[in-house]
Amino acid sequence: MKIAILGTGNVGRALARGWARAGHDVVLGSRRPEDVHLRAEPGSEAGDDIPVTDLKGAAAGAEVVVNATPGTASVALLAGVGQLPLAGKVLIDVAVGFGEDSSLSHPEESLGEEIQRTFPDLRVVKTLCTIDARLMVAPDSLEGPSTLFLSGDDAEAKATAAALLHDLGWPPESLLDLGGITTARGQEHYSLLFMGIAKALGSYGFGVRVVPPA
Amino acid sequence: MKIAILGTGNVGRALARGWARAGHDVVLGSRRPEDVHLRAEPGSEAGDDIPVTDLKGAAAGAEVVVNATPGTASVALLAGVGQLPLAGKVLIDVAVGFGEDSSLSHPEESLGEEIQRTFPDLRVVKTLCTIDARLMVAPDSLEGPSTLFLSGDDAEAKATAAALLHDLGWPPESLLDLGGITTARGQEHYSLLFMGIAKALGSYGFGVRVVPPA
Repeated sequence: MKIAILGTGNVGRALARGWARAGHDVVLGSRRPEDVHLRAEPGSEAGDDIPVTDLKGAAAGAEVVVNATPGTASVALLAGVGQLPLAGKVLIDVAVGFGEDSSLSHPEESLGEEIQRTFPDLRVVKTLCTIDARLMVAPDSLEGPSTLFLSGDDAEAKATAAALLHDLGWPPESLLDLGGITTARGQEHYSLLFMGIAKALGSYGFGVRVVPPA
Repeated sequence: MKIAILGTGNVGRALARGWARAGHDVVLGSRRPEDVHLRAEPGSEAGDDIPVTDLKGAAAGAEVVVNATPGTASVALLAGVGQLPLAGKVLIDVAVGFGEDSSLSHPEESLGEEIQRTFPDLRVVKTLCTIDARLMVAPDSLEGPSTLFLSGDDAEAKATAAALLHDLGWPPESLLDLGGITTARGQEHYSLLFMGIAKALGSYGFGVRVVPPA
């Protein structure tokens, strides 16, 4: 599958490597592609020869677009890409926006909803925003199974996202479809608890599991 | 321990029964104690002969006060109790406030913080707001261990709360101290994800577990 990942931070790079390893055709999109030199950086590894281009070019050639840009800038960056290169595509939104004092940039709703509202032709699926970048592509490194959530209005788009999550190592039983894109609120608001847990543990290396009745 | 539980809804009753079974001296506080007839109701059970009195009377005689009133009314109800009957006491706050459309009544911060700010002489501990009333007092009924969180500025008060949670069946390793009362935000905001999960599963009967690295 042709996947464009917008954003070249830890999350964008981790996902790019994960999906490239799974055999997908991955390109990274950056505001300043000329400044991104993956290979030259300390800790560069296999998969760091993923091509980097501008945001619009990356999105235009892709079947699936991943929003891994900073949450407070995502809507403006997607607007810069324009409606046309995005029209009809699946957008996997993994971003969360934080304002000052680690508060949410969308305290009353969610970034996922704003993106869906702003780009009605996109088929937005919110997922992967409840776990650290390294674990997104290595769910097996946890002590036991953990849960990932999906939110989105388009069932087919959620199935595409679920298949791509499976390619990262997430088994079907680890995925929980929460419903429409408004349920992205729950995923994004969990970020506050995520940060609290991370501070308490001194590590971002944890997952969260929905524990059913015995 | 003398425990006053303010609020006679599902949560208040469940906690009252749980702590009474553990041997504590429990009283329920209600705005209209004359209207609360626990024994007479369908499904009444052992523990339903817990005394019910007014909010002020309940709080005045207690060592530990539990806020299980509706989150949108809690601050006003506690103000009605007054500073004096609460001064110096541990207040275990288990409430979450919801506005219209299931949004949080405290989207920018938390009810726990507002209570602590409004009643500086109280020692507020936020906990138990991430799980359904029935499971609060029956953590063993889940398939595996789940996690409860504690937030509060007073270490001694959190130790008291942890001991009382232990009496409800929560082992020490299930408790995660998130830090000061500002971390109540994470617990309260998780409510949005909690409701999404409940809707997806068709049940409130689940816990959540922080899964550490292997």
